[in-house]
Amino acid sequence: MSASSDRNRRLVLAERPKGMVDGRTVRLEEKTTPEPGAGEALVRVRFLSIDPTIRTWMNDAPGYLPAIEIGDVVRGGGIGEVVSSGCERYREGDLVFGMTGWQDYAVVDEGAGAMQVLPAGVDPLVALSVLGVTGMTAYFGLIDVGRVAEGDTVVVSGAAGATGSVVGQIAKIKGAARVVGIAGTEEKCAWLTEELGFDAVVNYRTDNVGAKLRQLCPKGINVYFDNVGGEILDICLGQLALRGRVVLCGAISTYNEEGPVKGPGNYRNLIVMRGRMEGFLILDYFDRFPEAQLEMFGWVTEGRIKHSEHIVEGLENAPDALNLLFTGGNTGKVIVKLD
Amino acid sequence: MSASSDRNRRLVLAERPKGMVDGRTVRLEEKTTPEPGAGEALVRVRFLSIDPTIRTWMNDAPGYLPAIEIGDVVRGGGIGEVVSSGCERYREGDLVFGMTGWQDYAVVDEGAGAMQVLPAGVDPLVALSVLGVTGMTAYFGLIDVGRVAEGDTVVVSGAAGATGSVVGQIAKIKGAARVVGIAGTEEKCAWLTEELGFDAVVNYRTDNVGAKLRQLCPKGINVYFDNVGGEILDICLGQLALRGRVVLCGAISTYNEEGPVKGPGNYRNLIVMRGRMEGFLILDYFDRFPEAQLEMFGWVTEGRIKHSEHIVEGLENAPDALNLLFTGGNTGKVIVKLD
Repeated sequence: MSASSDRNRRLVLAERPKGMVDGRTVRLEEKTTPEPGAGEALVRVRFLSIDPTIRTWMNDAPGYLPAIEIGDVVRGGGIGEVVSSGCERYREGDLVFGMTGWQDYAVVDEGAGAMQVLPAGVDPLVALSVLGVTGMTAYFGLIDVGRVAEGDTVVVSGAAGATGSVVGQIAKIKGAARVVGIAGTEEKCAWLTEELGFDAVVNYRTDNVGAKLRQLCPKGINVYFDNVGGEILDICLGQLALRGRVVLCGAISTYNEEGPVKGPGNYRNLIVMRGRMEGFLILDYFDRFPEAQLEMFGWVTEGRIKHSEHIVEGLENAPDALNLLFTGGNTGKVIVKLD
Repeated sequence: MSASSDRNRRLVLAERPKGMVDGRTVRLEEKTTPEPGAGEALVRVRFLSIDPTIRTWMNDAPGYLPAIEIGDVVRGGGIGEVVSSGCERYREGDLVFGMTGWQDYAVVDEGAGAMQVLPAGVDPLVALSVLGVTGMTAYFGLIDVGRVAEGDTVVVSGAAGATGSVVGQIAKIKGAARVVGIAGTEEKCAWLTEELGFDAVVNYRTDNVGAKLRQLCPKGINVYFDNVGGEILDICLGQLALRGRVVLCGAISTYNEEGPVKGPGNYRNLIVMRGRMEGFLILDYFDRFPEAQLEMFGWVTEGRIKHSEHIVEGLENAPDALNLLFTGGNTGKVIVKLD
C-alpha cells in the first residue's frame, strides 16, 4: 500500500512518428492526480507492458483499435496497485492488470473487463509476460490458429521476443519434431537452444536465411509463426510443406515503414501447397484466457516454459523501451518499471 | 464410332515460353498412332480443356505437378472417344474424360483414375465446363475453402471466366447478399449482371477498382475468390470484412511474368481483420466430385447455373486458345475442338 502523489506524470503523444519513435514523439506532462469517483479506483502504475502493437496505434491509420489521438496518453497495458478505491471490485493494495496507459496514475472503473485483479502469489512480471497478453498470443496463435500437431516442423521469427520464445516452447510441449527459431544475435540464438530447448536457430543478420532454413527443414515448414513480416515471411512462404500454416501475429519489420509495404511474392505457394495464412488478434480470445493461463501456469511451475524479462527503469524511458523491440535490443518481454 | 488414322499429330513443348506462349513454344509433330496393348484403349481426342494452369506447367519450376519436359506432349485435360479397346473398362464409342494431352490420339490404361467414362446423355461441353474441373474448382473453392455463408458479400475476379462465372452463381444460390464480379470488358460485365445474376460488376480496365469496390461493398468483403493475383488481390485484401476469407484459386496476372512476383502488401490486413487466405488445388477433391457434380447437374437443369463455352477449332490453335485466358479474349470456358 502506498500513498499517492498529487502529481500525475503522463506521456502523451506529441506527434506521429515517422519510423522509429524519437524525442519528439511523446511529451511528458504533469497533471493533478485524478480523484476516483463512485465505482472507480485510483491505480498507481507499477509496470508497463511494452508491445509492438503500441507503435501501430501511433499511426493515423485504421486498425483494430482507433489511433491514439495527438495529446492523449499513450495507450498500453500494465500492472498497477490500487491506492484508493470507491468501489467493491477493487481494494486498496490489490494489484490490477489492464490498460493503464503510459502514466503514473490511472483511474479504473468497476465495469466489466475494465481491469483484472491479479490473484495473490502471482509475480507481476510473469503476469505481464507468459501469463499476459504476449504469452496468450503465443498460446492461441500456435494452438488455435496454427493447429500445431505432433511431428510438425515449426519455425518462429522474433524467436527471442516475448511471444516467439513462448511459441517455440509450446511447440515442443505439443510434440513438434523440430522447432527452429529466427533471431538476430548469437546471444539470443544461444539462449534459444541452450535454455529454451529450441532444436535449431537461424541468425537473420549473419546467416543466409533461405538456405539455412532449407537445410534445417528438409521436409518443409508445417507451421510458420510470423512476428516480423517482410523478407522472412516471404522466404518461409516459399518453403511451406503441404498444408502448411502461416500464423500472422505481427509484422514488426514493417511497423516503422512509410508508404506501401512490400508484400510476400511467394504467397502463390499457398496454392501449390494448399496452405493457409491467417491473422488473429489476442483480444478475440480474452474469454478463453482462464483455461490457457491455468495450463501455462502449470508449464511454468514445472519448468517446461521458461521466460525472460527485460526491465527498463523509469516512465520517461518507455519510448526507448518501445524502440528495443524494433532494434532487437531485448531478449524476452520488455517491461518498464515505474519508480 | 470412327476409324482411326495412322498419323497422330502432337503438340510438343519446343521451348519454355517467356511471357505469353508464342510460335516457338510448341512444335507440331506427326508420329505413328500408337497401338493400345492389353488393358489399354486408344482414344481419339475430341475436345481439349484449356486451363490457365497449363501455362504454369510450361515453366521449369516446381509446382504441384512436374514441369512438362521439353519434347513432351503438352499436358492438358480433354474428352475423347474410344476408337479401339483392349480392356473391359472402356468400350468403343465411349466418351472418356481425362488427361488427353494436346494430340489427336491418346492411349489410356484401365488403372484406377486413368480416365472417366462420361455417362450417356451428358453434353461433353458441359462435362468440360461446369461439371468438369473448372466448375468443380468453383464449387469446392467457394463452399469448402471460402465457407460462403448467407448474407455474405462475395467478390470474384476473372468473373467471366469458366470458374469465376460459376463462383458468382453458386454464391447467389448459397444466399450471398451481394455478388460482385470483376471482368475486363463491358460485354463481359453485361453478361454477368444480365444473364448470370451478378449483383454488380467492376470493369478493371476502365474503373478505379479500389474505389468502385469500396462503393459496392460498403461492409467489406466476406469472401474474395481470387483467380488473378496481382493488384486486384492486394486491393481486395485491403477491403476485407472481419473474418474475411481469400480463396486463392489462381494468379493468372502473374503466370506470364519473369522473375520475382510482387506480393500483396495489404496482407497485413489479415491480422487486423482476423482474415484467412488459403490456397487449394482441385485434385485434392477428386473423390468428392460425384456429390458436387450431382448438385451442379441439378442446378444446371433448373437453369440456376448458366454456362458459356468459347470454342476454338483445330488442335494447331491450342496455343492461341491458351493465350485467350491471359488476354481476356474469352467469355466462359475455352475449349479446343479437334477436327
